Amino acid sequence: MKFKKSEKFTESSGSMNSVVQWFVEGYNGSALMIKVKEILFEKKGLQHIQIFETESFGKMLVLDGKIQLTERDEVMYHEMLVHVPLFMIDGPSKILVIGGGDGGSVREILKHEPDEVIMVEIDREVVEACQMHIGIDGGALKDNRVTVLFEDGIEFVRTSKEKFDVIIVDGTDPNPVSKNLIAEEFYRYCSKIANLFATQSQSPFVQDQYFIELIQNAQRGFNFYSVYINYVPTYPLGLWSYLLASNSELNPNYDEIKRRWEERNIETKHYNPELHMASFALPQWLKRRLGEI
Amino acid sequence: MKFKKSEKFTESSGSMNSVVQWFVEGYNGSALMIKVKEILFEKKGLQHIQIFETESFGKMLVLDGKIQLTERDEVMYHEMLVHVPLFMIDGPSKILVIGGGDGGSVREILKHEPDEVIMVEIDREVVEACQMHIGIDGGALKDNRVTVLFEDGIEFVRTSKEKFDVIIVDGTDPNPVSKNLIAEEFYRYCSKIANLFATQSQSPFVQDQYFIELIQNAQRGFNFYSVYINYVPTYPLGLWSYLLASNSELNPNYDEIKRRWEERNIETKHYNPELHMASFALPQWLKRRLGEI
Repeated sequence: MKFKKSEKFTESSGSMNSVVQWFVEGYNGSALMIKVKEILFEKKGLQHIQIFETESFGKMLVLDGKIQLTERDEVMYHEMLVHVPLFMIDGPSKILVIGGGDGGSVREILKHEPDEVIMVEIDREVVEACQMHIGIDGGALKDNRVTVLFEDGIEFVRTSKEKFDVIIVDGTDPNPVSKNLIAEEFYRYCSKIANLFATQSQSPFVQDQYFIELIQNAQRGFNFYSVYINYVPTYPLGLWSYLLASNSELNPNYDEIKRRWEERNIETKHYNPELHMASFALPQWLKRRLGEI
Repeated sequence: MKFKKSEKFTESSGSMNSVVQWFVEGYNGSALMIKVKEILFEKKGLQHIQIFETESFGKMLVLDGKIQLTERDEVMYHEMLVHVPLFMIDGPSKILVIGGGDGGSVREILKHEPDEVIMVEIDREVVEACQMHIGIDGGALKDNRVTVLFEDGIEFVRTSKEKFDVIIVDGTDPNPVSKNLIAEEFYRYCSKIANLFATQSQSPFVQDQYFIELIQNAQRGFNFYSVYINYVPTYPLGLWSYLLASNSELNPNYDEIKRRWEERNIETKHYNPELHMASFALPQWLKRRLGEI
């Protein structure tokens, strides 16, 4: 294919027009390109929302130039974000999700048959666009155990009088809308209303600064934490990290996780109990970065 | 930056000219771009060799349009290719490497203090170009325990009268020069001269056909096999696979691996015994693809 002189992209934000058939996301000296067949939706509001039909990844959601999900690999992200915390405990009943407007996290949570899920998403237009053009939630957001609130997540946890078994943060890369979700205060508020907390924590290889800032702030909010990692092809250079945090000690025990997995009889495409345990094994460079060795 | 009308790339092979400052490797509907500062070497012989100075990955070796290594992440590949098989046994003494012209695998093997390493690389020009322009072997290929032969690997193993403790295949993506290294005969010859065998086995997410062909052919050559996976950012969409095979049962045992790791006192940047064990935990989609569930 040819690029025309008028076609530009910048490293920090995705760009598309009707001639260039590639979406590009840059990561400081490298970039991922995804071949696009059609632009299904585009709107600039609180965030710049784009939804594409791609050639080999199905539908793709992009916020502020960053790929949030593709139909082909979103399970790798959502299953590891949700099932790792939820298989850590018996009978997860009341779950809070911050962000997660596409509904993929709530879809996975419902497999554990909780009594109540509250999802707090700041950007109503993301939810509406995903419901209209992607629908990966498979109806989860309309389930009668689920309440969707369009509010600021940090305000919700600051003022909440309710307690939750687990809080799951399914946020975007830190941007003006979501940057509060990596602030120290946010973790302090969360630790007062839940004993178990999980968040996506960016790419430790590409986004080292955000990753470390998030981990350090979370450490100030919770007594214990563990980083786990997983492969998500369309996230920056394919490696993604998550943080599990608690005020009680975190000791993933394979036999207990396996027992819960068998009891709950959950169908997955990516997660399994062996991968659960394996995801906490970090390479030497990452252990050094975290000061663990 | 801008693209000019005359600048092209194809999905299947990397292309560069003096105006476009990005190297592009396509993978069927997606592509990785690496920002390039300078072309250090280029020659079309048995294979099309390119060596670049990149903006954020150090030097980069490309063969027939496929990234083989960058200085920044080659340890993630070489350490997992070499240390996983070598920590499976006590006292690895005589090792055969097929391919591996950049010398990274031999560098890692020497850390185990073997008596003898034979490296059989078909393309002398790759070795010479890497020695001249990259040098990641750190002198390993000139070590007096190491013999470098410029021959066809399949011919070497077919006619070899020698036995080896371990054979390690560090080949390129199957191309006219390396395609014999995924043929059934190759694995049969290897199984006659070594009891432990490891090879890179491509991306199971992007290169499903090669991956499955390789695994099936290796299964016909050896009685037992295990697939393991690891993260290599500049390989296709970041996930890479390896095959460990043997005529004896393969049961990685954490305590034994940890003991050997402590005895040998090897410095690594990526590998550790926990990651060794974790790399055999495969996601559900990959277990299904391998017929394991």
